[in-house]
Amino acid sequence: MEYRKIKDEDDDGGTVSDDIENLRGTGFPGVASVSNVPPREQAKWKRKTIVTLALTFLTSSQAILIVWSKRAGKYEYSVTTANFMVETLKCALSLAALARIWKSEGVTDDNRLSTTLDEVIVYPIPALLYLVKNLLQYYIFAYVDAPGYQILKNLNIISTGVLYRIILKKKLSEIQWAAFILLCAGCTTAQLNSRSDQVLQTPLPGWIMAIVMALLSGFAGVYTEAIIKKRPSRNINVQNFWLYIFGMAFNAVAILIQDFVAVMNKGFFHGYSIITTLMILNHALSGIAVSMVMKYADNIVKVYSTSVAMLLTAVVSVFLFGFNLTLAFFLGATVVSVSVYLHSAGKLQR
Amino acid sequence: MEYRKIKDEDDDGGTVSDDIENLRGTGFPGVASVSNVPPREQAKWKRKTIVTLALTFLTSSQAILIVWSKRAGKYEYSVTTANFMVETLKCALSLAALARIWKSEGVTDDNRLSTTLDEVIVYPIPALLYLVKNLLQYYIFAYVDAPGYQILKNLNIISTGVLYRIILKKKLSEIQWAAFILLCAGCTTAQLNSRSDQVLQTPLPGWIMAIVMALLSGFAGVYTEAIIKKRPSRNINVQNFWLYIFGMAFNAVAILIQDFVAVMNKGFFHGYSIITTLMILNHALSGIAVSMVMKYADNIVKVYSTSVAMLLTAVVSVFLFGFNLTLAFFLGATVVSVSVYLHSAGKLQR
Repeated sequence: MEYRKIKDEDDDGGTVSDDIENLRGTGFPGVASVSNVPPREQAKWKRKTIVTLALTFLTSSQAILIVWSKRAGKYEYSVTTANFMVETLKCALSLAALARIWKSEGVTDDNRLSTTLDEVIVYPIPALLYLVKNLLQYYIFAYVDAPGYQILKNLNIISTGVLYRIILKKKLSEIQWAAFILLCAGCTTAQLNSRSDQVLQTPLPGWIMAIVMALLSGFAGVYTEAIIKKRPSRNINVQNFWLYIFGMAFNAVAILIQDFVAVMNKGFFHGYSIITTLMILNHALSGIAVSMVMKYADNIVKVYSTSVAMLLTAVVSVFLFGFNLTLAFFLGATVVSVSVYLHSAGKLQR
Repeated sequence: MEYRKIKDEDDDGGTVSDDIENLRGTGFPGVASVSNVPPREQAKWKRKTIVTLALTFLTSSQAILIVWSKRAGKYEYSVTTANFMVETLKCALSLAALARIWKSEGVTDDNRLSTTLDEVIVYPIPALLYLVKNLLQYYIFAYVDAPGYQILKNLNIISTGVLYRIILKKKLSEIQWAAFILLCAGCTTAQLNSRSDQVLQTPLPGWIMAIVMALLSGFAGVYTEAIIKKRPSRNINVQNFWLYIFGMAFNAVAILIQDFVAVMNKGFFHGYSIITTLMILNHALSGIAVSMVMKYADNIVKVYSTSVAMLLTAVVSVFLFGFNLTLAFFLGATVVSVSVYLHSAGKLQR
């Protein structure tokens, strides 16, 4: 089992395109150029751009840490404890941010931690969906190997787009839909290798599981956005706290079920190394970046951001690890770049 | 040497997109739907659609004939004589069409065969360009193998777009440019195989030759369109006659230089089989279809048509020859399909 499993929901697919939009000042209909935009809208753009770039950077470095850890050899830590630590760290960081806000602004209706059942009842749902998805992950490997699974995971892009449209009722233009299909095709192309064709031989149950997993992952992402956006004035750190506290709870259960004996015998932090710690830190920060992107941008931005991060990772790996880029990678990167452009151009023409 | 060399200019890349345009009735600005279009414009569309479909069909069957001939074993005919026969057949078909027109309409200024030096002087240029390109073809194989050359030939798509813009001064919208880049990337992706990465190792002289050949091929195509469109009222069969008569002349020279001894010893039609005859017929008809597309549509339509034909060929080959489609093919076909859509959608939004 790889460390990658820690927080699979974080690397599913948001955006440089948004920066392009921002630069062009087309993020808001009827607004012609950045110079005409009121300062408040500009601040919004700035925040959106920063969280998007942060997510892209964190996702790239995440993948690089995974490669690094593979090269450094296997670590015998338990994945469930690492997942738990990620959720705990995210909770702690949210509380720390809240403490600072309470100090400067005082406790208000928007930033108080206490909540109503009506508000909190929906928060466990994304964590539950991810749990089901991660459980399915064990079974899909009976039908498809790890590189094949990486290819099939690109179905998340399409499922996120479809569910974003259905659940959040936000419209994408026809050009943007075309761009989204291209994003999926481009990412898959960039990941092609000599054995990728085996994916086509995946038996029907494997395909069904891959589609169900893509829908679960897409639904979890879109549902998280719905929860966070339902109360726009509510402080994001409070919303994160409640998301992550349920994440902690579900991961605690996972430890009890899967790794109880190992933790009892060898200790909770058995097998942890510097790289494990860095990965936990990275996953926690990118988890928070995902929440921020959901609050200030959307799932589409998240998908573009993580897709671009995938390409950046490959380019950086050339310099760090001496990887060779394939022709398929160049073609996929070209298609993804055109997709980013079209997502922005498609908005212009609405 | 393969039969494919016969008329390389014919399979460089024209359009289903156009049909979409036609159906939507957006081929003419300001015209809202087909029902509002005057009958004359509708007739134009119809003609454009027919020649485009003919080109797509002929290009597909051409590639299938090539595969069939490979399976049937090698034929020891001389390629130059086959090229000459293609040009001769095209000339004969143009004359036959003209004879019918003279009979029904009488000889007019537009359909008379006699011409001025001013009109005819430009006709040898495309044939000359193709000759230079075909000569270069022999040398590029010192740097790149045949499958690699097929990949590099997709550069024709980009060169055609660029030269179409520069020489014919026709504008493509930004979306259409994006679509054109996607068409190139999609076609290349669909052709990927396990050894395609070797193309990246092509030495600099190989790249330069590939780019020069793409420019020559693109220039020849765009220049042919310029010649044909310069006199819109001139009958296409007269224009074709003059194009092909020079084609015959250049190919006669090629026979003298390359295959004179073989033709003298073994005879002109030595090694011809039914399949050779079918291929000559197909190349002649697709050559005429290319001219028709240049007259009634343009080089962009030609590129789309032959690209779509490439995909159709692969699908048909699955049924005819039991070929397997690769994941790369599906991804490339998806990108090409989106490109066709975007070419049409890009026109809409101009």
